Amino acid sequence: MRGEEVGRLFLVLFQATSAFLRRLNREELISLVENKNYFSFSIQKRGRTRLSRPINSGLFLVDSSQVETCWESLLEDDLAGRDADAVTKVIYTLAISFCAGVDMVKDGDKKTPGTFFEYLIGYLFAKALGIDPVRRIQVLNLDLTASLPTDYIFNLGSNRPKFHVPVKTSTRERIIQVWAHQRVLDGVYGTGRFLGMPVVLNETKLDVANRKVTEICLPEQWLIYQMHIAKLNRIYYLDVPESYGRLNLVFPPIRILPFGQFFFEFAELT
Amino acid sequence: MRGEEVGRLFLVLFQATSAFLRRLNREELISLVENKNYFSFSIQKRGRTRLSRPINSGLFLVDSSQVETCWESLLEDDLAGRDADAVTKVIYTLAISFCAGVDMVKDGDKKTPGTFFEYLIGYLFAKALGIDPVRRIQVLNLDLTASLPTDYIFNLGSNRPKFHVPVKTSTRERIIQVWAHQRVLDGVYGTGRFLGMPVVLNETKLDVANRKVTEICLPEQWLIYQMHIAKLNRIYYLDVPESYGRLNLVFPPIRILPFGQFFFEFAELT
Repeated sequence: MRGEEVGRLFLVLFQATSAFLRRLNREELISLVENKNYFSFSIQKRGRTRLSRPINSGLFLVDSSQVETCWESLLEDDLAGRDADAVTKVIYTLAISFCAGVDMVKDGDKKTPGTFFEYLIGYLFAKALGIDPVRRIQVLNLDLTASLPTDYIFNLGSNRPKFHVPVKTSTRERIIQVWAHQRVLDGVYGTGRFLGMPVVLNETKLDVANRKVTEICLPEQWLIYQMHIAKLNRIYYLDVPESYGRLNLVFPPIRILPFGQFFFEFAELT
Repeated sequence: MRGEEVGRLFLVLFQATSAFLRRLNREELISLVENKNYFSFSIQKRGRTRLSRPINSGLFLVDSSQVETCWESLLEDDLAGRDADAVTKVIYTLAISFCAGVDMVKDGDKKTPGTFFEYLIGYLFAKALGIDPVRRIQVLNLDLTASLPTDYIFNLGSNRPKFHVPVKTSTRERIIQVWAHQRVLDGVYGTGRFLGMPVVLNETKLDVANRKVTEICLPEQWLIYQMHIAKLNRIYYLDVPESYGRLNLVFPPIRILPFGQFFFEFAELT
């Protein structure tokens, strides 16, 4: 899945959605999230306004050529002169544009954006690590043989870490599954062999009736999961939720990072 | 929630749904599940046939008076002369009738049947144990204070077990959450203090196009969850899936029981 043609395809797709979105109206939303502003694309359909999911104005690159040139650099493994924040914005813009585009044409379709986002992140990991993921691993355990379906697993081979990479557009209370899967991997293969590093788009929620945007977060529960279920190595976000960002500062900390960071640290992690 | 008037309400609701369903057509389905037959209620809507979820003919009591008299006995705590299978059928009929009724009038509504089923099982546990459940427990842990939302917890007081009772109409891969919650309870409070005993309606899936009914089960994964995440005390089903029933026979076994059994064993468990 890491071929160059796949990388080009994401760019073509972005150019198409970006051209489509540019013709739509933008509606400012009332952000209840500190230090963040959100807007939606909007469309009139049968006399009613349809809004896209909320888009973080501070992360969304209006000038699509910025996305294109940075994406080219990513394809060429040459990020010299760029930093994590810049890369985060590019991938955020690419991902949220597609999701917003789907919001505009299909009502209540959560599957298409989810699948797209999974492919996008899967591609970026595969390209960076130079290896394709698997989605199912063998459990061999004395007389028991079973095959366990998983999220993306990137196996770098012996004496190197294996990456366990669940990909979600948002998590809410479903995130507990990620810790539970990590627990199974730790239990079956030994603690520390799989580095759990989920990638999540955002945790925003739009109340359409009053145009208010909030972030749905459960930081206290995350601390308990991290202490009592399993240890995730880090959690990447494209739009880092405010209250999760603060988990970097508690003890024991949970590392919550903007996803662009991955491109500057994966060499160290492997 | 264990008041007598609540118990009466379930009966009134059953009588209404049962009267509604009796006027509908029944369509036999093609069961791909060994030793089980299924049918659906059907209705014509805008020239199209709408089918209810599959109903197990071997568990569904056509004569609603049988349900009514047994329910009365349950309300009076007098199950003399009845056995677990008979009680399972009564509760199955009551639950599936409501769910099928909702299927007939609302397209794709999963929430109403889920909420109803949760109330029904919550009521039956509360009545049997003589205590109301809570849905949130305090985590006190040195300098950390948090409140954890949970499924039903029935706290029988000191020196007695606490029951952890997640209720689902079906589980599929979401079941891992139940083991993860059990793991958190074990970790926070100590292993063995909470008996995990989820109650599930069934695991059937209907392929509407060809009228085929299957059961979606993941028995190999259940074994791994039970070994590596946490230990569930037992799992009750109203319509026990064939491949899960066999988990009673493997080693280490997972106890999978028809829910009617609860009424004949809860005294022992407490």
